[in-house]
Amino acid sequence: MSLAKTILIIGVGPGDPDQVTIQAVKALNRLDVVFLMDKGAAKDSLIEHRREVLRRHAPDRAIRFVEAPIPERDRTGDYEAGVRDLNARKGDVFERMIAEGLKDGECGGVLVWGDPALYDSTVRIVEEIAASGRHDLEWEVIPGISSIQTLAARHRTTLNRIGRSIEVTTGRRLREAGPRADSVVVMLDAENAFAGLDDPEAYEIYWGAYVGAPEEILIAGPLAEVTNEIVRRRAAAREANGWIMDSYILRRREPDE
Amino acid sequence: MSLAKTILIIGVGPGDPDQVTIQAVKALNRLDVVFLMDKGAAKDSLIEHRREVLRRHAPDRAIRFVEAPIPERDRTGDYEAGVRDLNARKGDVFERMIAEGLKDGECGGVLVWGDPALYDSTVRIVEEIAASGRHDLEWEVIPGISSIQTLAARHRTTLNRIGRSIEVTTGRRLREAGPRADSVVVMLDAENAFAGLDDPEAYEIYWGAYVGAPEEILIAGPLAEVTNEIVRRRAAAREANGWIMDSYILRRREPDE
Repeated sequence: MSLAKTILIIGVGPGDPDQVTIQAVKALNRLDVVFLMDKGAAKDSLIEHRREVLRRHAPDRAIRFVEAPIPERDRTGDYEAGVRDLNARKGDVFERMIAEGLKDGECGGVLVWGDPALYDSTVRIVEEIAASGRHDLEWEVIPGISSIQTLAARHRTTLNRIGRSIEVTTGRRLREAGPRADSVVVMLDAENAFAGLDDPEAYEIYWGAYVGAPEEILIAGPLAEVTNEIVRRRAAAREANGWIMDSYILRRREPDE
Repeated sequence: MSLAKTILIIGVGPGDPDQVTIQAVKALNRLDVVFLMDKGAAKDSLIEHRREVLRRHAPDRAIRFVEAPIPERDRTGDYEAGVRDLNARKGDVFERMIAEGLKDGECGGVLVWGDPALYDSTVRIVEEIAASGRHDLEWEVIPGISSIQTLAARHRTTLNRIGRSIEVTTGRRLREAGPRADSVVVMLDAENAFAGLDDPEAYEIYWGAYVGAPEEILIAGPLAEVTNEIVRRRAAAREANGWIMDSYILRRREPDE
């Protein structure tokens, strides 16, 4: 048996505990430890989602939970610098959890909401710790269904038009730079950037919150016509649940539509 | 029992038969019929991938295969018009398969390579047939892991930089318009568009073929340094296997790297 510690970064999908792959289920059943580093209003729901995934798909596995409080991002300065600083501090916390919470030869997992490749910092953090050489570490990434794929599936639509590009971006970037492709997928939009576009008449929107989960809300239609409804239902859902995870596709209308 | 026919469009991932979700496995076990509409050099491999997925994950289910030859795309004119024309003809073929191959109350499936939301026409085709009102049809889409997610996972990297946008595009568009974000994900590139960028010194590339499958090849590095290796190994693999499915991430190098 190898004395290396193994870290598995496992995508567990956005909301439906059955939206994990067989590959992910096999990975869950290798785990001795699950690391939890959540924060904010969605924290309890994210942890409960992971526990439900484990109850369903690794019911016979004795898994320890190792939890650490993580610092909040400094919101006063530059966004990217703030995230980098946060990741450095998360890295320190995570490295301590590996050192103290995971024994030699054991396997620890980070269960990432959605897909680890999209707007998640776990890969960068583990890469840095592994590159430091301070631990005998092996690590793997297991992809997961992202919220935007579930969003498209639930709306029974596609992310791209035929042969065209897609821009995947954040609410912050959409506000700053506007849409830069005729299909734009927006994540991490806390402030309804879709409601501030210059030419709402030019777009259709496919919006969804809590996609795949029982609380799921889906709204689609011409942007100018459904903006108010989305803003209203989004605020009400955030109020009712204490948090919201939503995303949307903006698609420029074509002359033939 | 409903007399409607049900169509399930199921993403089955890019190459590893275990990269299907539990949700997809449950959907596979509802199927009476699987529709096959493949073409080109990868046809046999794509069909074999589906059969392996079914053997592993729906072994006790008696499923009929309904196969139809589909017309080739007209390659003489405009690309998008050619795809539209092809989809119309595929729609006719698919409608006939539904009418003749699926009984009332039965469930038919299309097993889509990767994710149905990304560069696949099945959703558009089924939407059109359902909208025609000529059949009593219910339909659902089950998301799958896309090749670009497996590509990122196998390279243990992310699709986006912190807080930045991603452009997901085709080789054709990359040749015509160049990269339009600092992370560009390229699919459907038959002609090595990465090798024709104006400033190869400015990019890292994460390239992969047959990701998740036993034939998988991964190459990453500064674009200017690995271009020739990718071109050479890509040609050799296509020659050896008779077909190739590949994709890549181009990432603009940052001053601090």
